[in-house]
Amino acid sequence: MERKPRNTLVLLTDFGTRDPYVGVMKLVVLSRVQRPVNLVDLSHDVPPQDLHVAARMIRCSRPYLPPASVWLIVVDPGVGTSRRAIAFELRDGSAGVAPDNGVLTPLKRDVVAASRLPIPPEASTTFHGRDVFAPAAARLLEGAHPHDLGVPVEPKTLKELPAALPVVRDEGIQGRVVDVDRFGNLITNIPADLFQGRPVRVHVAGKEIPLVRTYADVEPGALLALVGSCGELEISVRNGSAARHLRAGIGTDVWVFFSS
Amino acid sequence: MERKPRNTLVLLTDFGTRDPYVGVMKLVVLSRVQRPVNLVDLSHDVPPQDLHVAARMIRCSRPYLPPASVWLIVVDPGVGTSRRAIAFELRDGSAGVAPDNGVLTPLKRDVVAASRLPIPPEASTTFHGRDVFAPAAARLLEGAHPHDLGVPVEPKTLKELPAALPVVRDEGIQGRVVDVDRFGNLITNIPADLFQGRPVRVHVAGKEIPLVRTYADVEPGALLALVGSCGELEISVRNGSAARHLRAGIGTDVWVFFSS
Amino acid sequence: MERKPRNTLVLLTDFGTRDPYVGVMKLVVLSRVQRPVNLVDLSHDVPPQDLHVAARMIRCSRPYLPPASVWLIVVDPGVGTSRRAIAFELRDGSAGVAPDNGVLTPLKRDVVAASRLPIPPEASTTFHGRDVFAPAAARLLEGAHPHDLGVPVEPKTLKELPAALPVVRDEGIQGRVVDVDRFGNLITNIPADLFQGRPVRVHVAGKEIPLVRTYADVEPGALLALVGSCGELEISVRNGSAARHLRAGIGTDVWVFFSS
Repeated sequence: MERKPRNTLVLLTDFGTRDPYVGVMKLVVLSRVQRPVNLVDLSHDVPPQDLHVAARMIRCSRPYLPPASVWLIVVDPGVGTSRRAIAFELRDGSAGVAPDNGVLTPLKRDVVAASRLPIPPEASTTFHGRDVFAPAAARLLEGAHPHDLGVPVEPKTLKELPAALPVVRDEGIQGRVVDVDRFGNLITNIPADLFQGRPVRVHVAGKEIPLVRTYADVEPGALLALVGSCGELEISVRNGSAARHLRAGIGTDVWVFFSS
Repeated sequence: MERKPRNTLVLLTDFGTRDPYVGVMKLVVLSRVQRPVNLVDLSHDVPPQDLHVAARMIRCSRPYLPPASVWLIVVDPGVGTSRRAIAFELRDGSAGVAPDNGVLTPLKRDVVAASRLPIPPEASTTFHGRDVFAPAAARLLEGAHPHDLGVPVEPKTLKELPAALPVVRDEGIQGRVVDVDRFGNLITNIPADLFQGRPVRVHVAGKEIPLVRTYADVEPGALLALVGSCGELEISVRNGSAARHLRAGIGTDVWVFFSS
Repeated sequence: MERKPRNTLVLLTDFGTRDPYVGVMKLVVLSRVQRPVNLVDLSHDVPPQDLHVAARMIRCSRPYLPPASVWLIVVDPGVGTSRRAIAFELRDGSAGVAPDNGVLTPLKRDVVAASRLPIPPEASTTFHGRDVFAPAAARLLEGAHPHDLGVPVEPKTLKELPAALPVVRDEGIQGRVVDVDRFGNLITNIPADLFQGRPVRVHVAGKEIPLVRTYADVEPGALLALVGSCGELEISVRNGSAARHLRAGIGTDVWVFFSS
C-alpha cells in the first residue's frame, strides 16, 4: 500500500548534547531518508533515565505536533534487557518509536497500531537509539506502518507509568513538585481543573503564596502561583527563581487549601 | 497581494534547552508551514530576562542573516503585562516577531513596518512564545506582511534600551564587560573605532594587558586584548579563560588609556 | 564540470551553544545555499581546544554520515596563526572543512583531495568559523571540489595527532580514560579487539570490575565494564555515574589483565 511520507522528526532523549549521540541518530535517519526533514529537538536533557519527566514533556508537547510527525523517544534505562522496542502509530496519523518502559503513557490511549522492533544481532547493547530506533524512525518518515517494521503487539499491552496524581481531600489538594524548569519555576502535579473557580490558598514550604493570573500581578522578586502553560499549578518568583527562593525541588510538597 | 515565502527561522530566547519550550515553538511553526524550514538557533541561553545580552546577540548576528529570514525573539520578562507583542519587517525584506521591550533596539532603525499582535483570549499568560509569537512567525514565513497580522504601529514608537556606551575622556575610555562567552573571553562595550589607529594601554582589574591582533601574538596562558569578531574590544587568555584568570565578569571596569 | 549538490551539514565545534557563534555560522551557510539544508549538530561542547576529544567524536560518528554530507569542523586553538585552513573531499564523495591541526586524523586515510583555503584580508582574526570555514562549507554543499576553493595540498601532508594507544604487555593492557560522557560513563582508549575472546580482569582505581555484555547484567548501582557503542572498553555504573562512583575522569588509568 502506498503511504504518505512524514516530514518532521521530534526527538526526546536523556543523552545530553555534549556527546555526539543525538547527532549520530539524526545522521542515521538522514542516511535513509534522502530529503530535507524538519528536525525538532524537544529536549535531550531529561534527567538521566527519568521516565516521569520525559512523559510529562511528551504530554505537554503533543498538542502542538504537526500530524505528519515521527517521535524518536529514547529514554531507555533498560537498553540491552528484554524490554520491548516499540514502533507505533497514533489516531492522527503521526507515528513514533520508543522503548516500552512507560514513557509512552501519555500517548497510549491514542495508539492505533504498534509493533515490536527486532533487535539486529549486530546492534550495540548500549545504543539502541542508533541501531534500532533511528532506523525504524526513518522507515516511519518514509510512510511505513508500524506493522511493516516488526511483530504486531496489542496497544493495550504497552507499559504504563503509575499515575503521579495529587491527593484530593475535603480541605484541599496535596500535590508535589514534579519538575523545575530553567527559570526555577516549580511545576506541580496539580491540574488546574481540580481547583479553578474555587477560592483557594496555596502553601509551599511553610509559606502562603498568592494565586494570580500572570507574573505581572505581583512585584518583581515576589512569589506567586499560577496556572502554567501545560495546565498545571506552578510556583514562580517574578523575574526570579522559585526553586532558589524556597529551596524547593522535585518532590517538595505543595498544598492547595479550599477556602471556606 | 502575492508575497514571497521566507524559509529560514532564526530563534533567540532565554528559555534554555532543557525544557521543551523551544521545541514546542518550532512545532507550532511547522504545523502551520507545511514545508521544510531552516531552523537556526542563535541562542536559548540568554541569561534569564537579560535584554542587553539579547540585543547584543541580535546586533552581532544580523549582518549574516539570509534576506528571506524570520526572527523569533522571545526574551520577555513582561509576558502577561500590557507590553506590546510586535511583528515587524526590515528594509531588506526579512521580518520577525518580538516583545516590545527594547530587545529590538539594534534593528529599530531598519524597521519599515510593524504591527501589534493581538493576544487571543485562550493564550497562556506565561508562554506567548507558543501562543502569540510562533503562530505569527509562521505567517511571516508564509510571506505575510506585518500589517496582515495586527494593528499597524509606528516603527519609531518601538521601545529602545538605554545605550550602554563607554565614557570617553581626554585620557582614555572607560568601558565595562558586557558579556562573557563560553571560552571566558570578556566582551566589552568599547567599539574598536573609538581607539583603533591610536597607541593605547588597556587596563583591567589592575593589570595592563597588551593589545594585539590575534591570540597567537602572545604565549599560551598569557592575557591579551584584541578586537573581537563583533568589532568590540575583548580581553582573552590564549588557550585559557580571561574570566577565570582575572576573576572578572559582567560589569567589570575596562580602561583604554590613550598613550601620549 | 557539473557536480552534485550535497544536502547535509554536520557541525562539530568547541563553541558551546550559549553564544551565537554556531548560529551565525549556519546563517552564513544558508545565505549562500538558498535551499533547505539538513543541519546536524554533532557537538558544540568539545572541551575548549581539545583536539583528541574532537577527533574521537569524528571517528565514532563518521560511519553514520550520509554520503552527501559536508563536515564543518571548527576546533581551532591556532586561529589567526599560520595553521592551514583546509577543504577536503573523502573517498565516498562527502567533503568538509577544518583547521589543519590534527583534528582530521581519523579521516586522513580517506582524503582524496584537499586544498588550503585563502584567508580574506577582512576576515576576523578570531572567528575563521564564520569568515573562512562556513563560506567554504557552503561552496562544498553546492557541489564544489576542494580544488575549486584554494591551492591544492597533498593529503598526506595533513597534520596528525599522536596516537593515544594503550600499552599492551604480556600480562595485559594499560590504557586510560579519554572521555567521560553525559551519563558518567568512562570511555577508554582500549579497543575491544585487543581483548575480546580472551578471559580478562578489568581494574580501575584499585577495583576489579566485571566485564559484561550489557548494563542489565549487573544490579542497578553496580559497576561494570563493557564494549561501548564505538567499540572501546567503557566503565559504567548501571543507572548511575561511574565517574562519580570511582572519582575518575580523563586520564585515569585502566587495566585489562589477561587471566592465565
